[in-house]
Amino acid sequence: MRTVVVTDTPRTPIEKVDKLAEYGVATVHEALGRDGLLGPDLRPIQDGARIGGTAVTALCWPGDNLMIHAAVEQCRTGDVLVVTTTSPSRDGLFGELFATALQHRGVRGLVINTGVRDVADLRAMNFPVWSAAVSAQGTVKATAGAVNVPVVISGQTIRPGDAILADDDGVMVVSREDVDRGLDKSQARLDKEEATRKAFRAGELGLDRYGLRTKLAELGVEYLTADEYGR
Amino acid sequence: MRTVVVTDTPRTPIEKVDKLAEYGVATVHEALGRDGLLGPDLRPIQDGARIGGTAVTALCWPGDNLMIHAAVEQCRTGDVLVVTTTSPSRDGLFGELFATALQHRGVRGLVINTGVRDVADLRAMNFPVWSAAVSAQGTVKATAGAVNVPVVISGQTIRPGDAILADDDGVMVVSREDVDRGLDKSQARLDKEEATRKAFRAGELGLDRYGLRTKLAELGVEYLTADEYGR
Amino acid sequence: MRTVVVTDTPRTPIEKVDKLAEYGVATVHEALGRDGLLGPDLRPIQDGARIGGTAVTALCWPGDNLMIHAAVEQCRTGDVLVVTTTSPSRDGLFGELFATALQHRGVRGLVINTGVRDVADLRAMNFPVWSAAVSAQGTVKATAGAVNVPVVISGQTIRPGDAILADDDGVMVVSREDVDRGLDKSQARLDKEEATRKAFRAGELGLDRYGLRTKLAELGVEYLTADEYGR
Amino acid sequence: MRTVVVTDTPRTPIEKVDKLAEYGVATVHEALGRDGLLGPDLRPIQDGARIGGTAVTALCWPGDNLMIHAAVEQCRTGDVLVVTTTSPSRDGLFGELFATALQHRGVRGLVINTGVRDVADLRAMNFPVWSAAVSAQGTVKATAGAVNVPVVISGQTIRPGDAILADDDGVMVVSREDVDRGLDKSQARLDKEEATRKAFRAGELGLDRYGLRTKLAELGVEYLTADEYGR
Amino acid sequence: MRTVVVTDTPRTPIEKVDKLAEYGVATVHEALGRDGLLGPDLRPIQDGARIGGTAVTALCWPGDNLMIHAAVEQCRTGDVLVVTTTSPSRDGLFGELFATALQHRGVRGLVINTGVRDVADLRAMNFPVWSAAVSAQGTVKATAGAVNVPVVISGQTIRPGDAILADDDGVMVVSREDVDRGLDKSQARLDKEEATRKAFRAGELGLDRYGLRTKLAELGVEYLTADEYGR
Amino acid sequence: MRTVVVTDTPRTPIEKVDKLAEYGVATVHEALGRDGLLGPDLRPIQDGARIGGTAVTALCWPGDNLMIHAAVEQCRTGDVLVVTTTSPSRDGLFGELFATALQHRGVRGLVINTGVRDVADLRAMNFPVWSAAVSAQGTVKATAGAVNVPVVISGQTIRPGDAILADDDGVMVVSREDVDRGLDKSQARLDKEEATRKAFRAGELGLDRYGLRTKLAELGVEYLTADEYGR
Repeated sequence: MRTVVVTDTPRTPIEKVDKLAEYGVATVHEALGRDGLLGPDLRPIQDGARIGGTAVTALCWPGDNLMIHAAVEQCRTGDVLVVTTTSPSRDGLFGELFATALQHRGVRGLVINTGVRDVADLRAMNFPVWSAAVSAQGTVKATAGAVNVPVVISGQTIRPGDAILADDDGVMVVSREDVDRGLDKSQARLDKEEATRKAFRAGELGLDRYGLRTKLAELGVEYLTADEYGR
Repeated sequence: MRTVVVTDTPRTPIEKVDKLAEYGVATVHEALGRDGLLGPDLRPIQDGARIGGTAVTALCWPGDNLMIHAAVEQCRTGDVLVVTTTSPSRDGLFGELFATALQHRGVRGLVINTGVRDVADLRAMNFPVWSAAVSAQGTVKATAGAVNVPVVISGQTIRPGDAILADDDGVMVVSREDVDRGLDKSQARLDKEEATRKAFRAGELGLDRYGLRTKLAELGVEYLTADEYGR
Repeated sequence: MRTVVVTDTPRTPIEKVDKLAEYGVATVHEALGRDGLLGPDLRPIQDGARIGGTAVTALCWPGDNLMIHAAVEQCRTGDVLVVTTTSPSRDGLFGELFATALQHRGVRGLVINTGVRDVADLRAMNFPVWSAAVSAQGTVKATAGAVNVPVVISGQTIRPGDAILADDDGVMVVSREDVDRGLDKSQARLDKEEATRKAFRAGELGLDRYGLRTKLAELGVEYLTADEYGR
Repeated sequence: MRTVVVTDTPRTPIEKVDKLAEYGVATVHEALGRDGLLGPDLRPIQDGARIGGTAVTALCWPGDNLMIHAAVEQCRTGDVLVVTTTSPSRDGLFGELFATALQHRGVRGLVINTGVRDVADLRAMNFPVWSAAVSAQGTVKATAGAVNVPVVISGQTIRPGDAILADDDGVMVVSREDVDRGLDKSQARLDKEEATRKAFRAGELGLDRYGLRTKLAELGVEYLTADEYGR
Repeated sequence: MRTVVVTDTPRTPIEKVDKLAEYGVATVHEALGRDGLLGPDLRPIQDGARIGGTAVTALCWPGDNLMIHAAVEQCRTGDVLVVTTTSPSRDGLFGELFATALQHRGVRGLVINTGVRDVADLRAMNFPVWSAAVSAQGTVKATAGAVNVPVVISGQTIRPGDAILADDDGVMVVSREDVDRGLDKSQARLDKEEATRKAFRAGELGLDRYGLRTKLAELGVEYLTADEYGR
Repeated sequence: MRTVVVTDTPRTPIEKVDKLAEYGVATVHEALGRDGLLGPDLRPIQDGARIGGTAVTALCWPGDNLMIHAAVEQCRTGDVLVVTTTSPSRDGLFGELFATALQHRGVRGLVINTGVRDVADLRAMNFPVWSAAVSAQGTVKATAGAVNVPVVISGQTIRPGDAILADDDGVMVVSREDVDRGLDKSQARLDKEEATRKAFRAGELGLDRYGLRTKLAELGVEYLTADEYGR
């Protein structure tokens, strides 16, 4: 790891990120070929928030939030701060004071795969957070890390400036290159889902709509009555 | 595993399931000798829901929701869909479109030991879900499994048609054979609990009510003052 | 383990505990040198509760709540019941009937590193609980344990009479000897945090406020533009 | 759970179990349609053991080995003792004294999804064990359970008298009804594997042998050079 | 936490520790009332080692081995180094160079609830280690901790100078005050176990030897034939 | 994810990989600034193997080994096959037949973050494997994935052709760009370690050798006698 703070990273245009965020994580994730999800361990500390923003990344030593201080300075309106550690940790690297500083700068929320504290305050001030734990466990400011370098959470690479989407279903990253494709495919998917929703409300079955009866037959799935099965 | 869809499974009479559900999971579980609980890893995605229904089961390949489509067709009013996988998975096998189809058929909720997505929508449409994870991770429809065969979740066998009870305390299964016993014993337990509740509100101690002072003495438990203990 | 019930343990003065509780877990934990936190696995079953109280401890066999009955008798106004087991367990050792008995005695809440059941009832009766799991899994009353002996949860020793603080950030213990120091240092920390909050709202950076630019330089952290970094 | 000891359970003929065991867990598991495996958490405490036997089951309370004593009496030559608990536990329910008693009775080994102790002794006396943990944590003999009732480990139901196979790859159960089918299919699978082994040693590819090139093409998998991919 | 190095801690007499170690962890743990075991997550990196020694403790920041350097100086012949961290970590805080320094000082082994590296070397040089992980993940030397203060691992408090016993069954602590009692009770237990071993080899059952038939009857355990049970 | 097989990926020169491998994972990992380690969950199924090779990567669907077949064809002398899945899985995706095919092609070993089966055979044929689990759980060949695309394991990106090093301490990746730097720095580190080893054998302390006494003093660590500390 190079111990650097990278200062003027290009961002995905925020109006595109905002449009993408409206589709929601589940839709965009499917639209982009089921890629980019940051896994089920990152959970919202609040209900009902849905945000999008451009990533500023911080890579910290476990139990050490020094680099979050350096990252705050790199944040600006429309960003989402993304924090990870060099080794797994659940310590509370982030609390309400950091959120105060970030809100002042127009930052839209935090994604962190360690712990956060002051969750009652964070909810009260409407600063949305997705984290791997809630923990008051305090930290030091002793070891160098990096700001705005690519980081990996749950197998997904997040580069500074990438679009981050987060809602009740979790968090995902859309790389700058994929944003336009994401917008196109998400709208197409949304249209298709709306048509399916109407069909399902009218009683149509997925088996028929997606042609799955043939698939089941090809795979050798048999239909048996309970009597036949029990024999 | 036989790759089958079993089509006309007998169900526990729904009016019995409804009565059982009113007692709640904790009471019925105790009443039936502490059996049938699907373990602490299945959590509700909403607060305050309490449902009962008859099980339709789907056994899927990890990351594959093909058999849920086949299961939907087997569901009818009063059912609860119960989904598990051949190997542990937390992928989001189920979302709002499935819930739309199931609600149309009068299904009361979902129990799934993998992940679900679209949780904000599921809450908004009042379709209650108990799951092992929330995850937008998408799935394929490629591999055969089974519908309405016995499945095992957290060490408990669920046969199609069994009663499923779920509330804020978790999920349990009551086999068709045990439903009448469950109804009798739950009412008895409820009466006993109400009497105990009154006694506890009046200051009686469990030690006296359950005769535990003798038990403690037999087990050799000593009473010491802090001074005696510290010496 | 000695199988004893210790009967007249000294308590931290409750008015001091009450003052400490107002500061909240995150603040007191930092004020006391980042000690005493019971770890991120103990989570509240409700939102927004903040309590303080004096510890009554119960050490149980896994799957056995006999000693909780013995502990109830030792509880009085201002106490918090703290329950652990000799081996890890997630069974539901505690439910609404126990809470009824404890509320009658003026107990302020429960901290338990196994499971609890009847969570809808517990929320409705405003009896706050921090637990490691929600589980209806029932228990026996068969094996001796201890009441009001020192217990360890998540690496922290809790002695009977110690101050227990719990809120949305988790649970912590403050030993009787540390309470006065905790009060002093928490107030100092609160004042400092308020000053920092104002500064952050005005746009000051932690980098400047805490003198971290020097630290980063000493540690060899370089500032690079994205262009320089990419080269 | 009924608290019973079932005394004269029928067994799978031992000579069939012995033949099945020679094929090994991986082969029989595949031969029987990928069913019956007791999951990756049960690991051998020794290297290189491969056993087969008929199941005697014991269902214990966590931290309590009373029912193992009752189970020993039900064991006879050719059996494998299978132990589980009503809730997850890693306590050391089994040690060298139990193994001494079982070896006297001709028992072939132990499968237990809690912990074992005295592992150096168990290895020295050649009593093979598959367990979920090694732990010296001691136990009580206080609570009733059951012997020779069906038990579930890792989602698989084990009925007394079923065939248990265990080797370095793990543990599996073959129900009495499936033993003959298992013998037929395992031999067929072994023959097929031997042919494949020879082909692979001669340089044939699975892609060709199993006709997977067509499959890949149907699924839309493209072949690209690194240059084409990088563009 | 006070950031101190405590320099002249009293030790349990080494000849007593040596005698205790001969009994092995499982026996001493039972003899002392099932107390002191450091849990199943600490595993030996080698087979067959059995050691005893007096504890020198080091409390480190996660991912930081500074205090191990301070601890080495406090170690002398007969000691066992015991290392833990303020928050859970699996980083490789210890390797072959530390072992070289400790072997020079007559230290008998290492107990660490994080990770170790250079395990091939450690095995080759016969320096026994019990750890929670094997990991080459490197560390810094940046943050203060403590040496020779009481530490807690897996719920057990280890004070400097306490006896540490470790073998294939795990690790346990015997406090200085309990060593004499441990010696007496372990010999008694060994004698009893030897008598039981002989009895079991001769075919006696635990049911009879421990009077458990009465216990089972009192608990209401029924004996049924398979036929009776199946009905 | 693009479902592709990339066919002619450049490799790190094998003679450089071989030299790097001799240093061992722990040394190279430190030499390269503590980067590239694939985490403590990947464990060897054998003792004492130390390998290096060039990565061929396969990205599979959970429970599906189709893409391993496609990957085999891309492997050649000096390669190490690296397998991961789109979602976490512990199924046994790899066994002895695959190893036979790979050995024929001169492949040096397997790194897989799911399960493997036939471990006794794999050990016997000296085909070294590092895996996240041992499991006989069988798989299908139904869903497309990718071969020779960048994959992520435990937060580390592995690109095809990168150097893979594996020994008893775990697995690491060295990118093609870092191999020369790795060779230089590892030799320097080895020399330094040898000097330290000699010094430690002669009784020098890390405290003195690394100048840590000053560090401890700066951090405010106090030296106290046990008496002073106890007061």
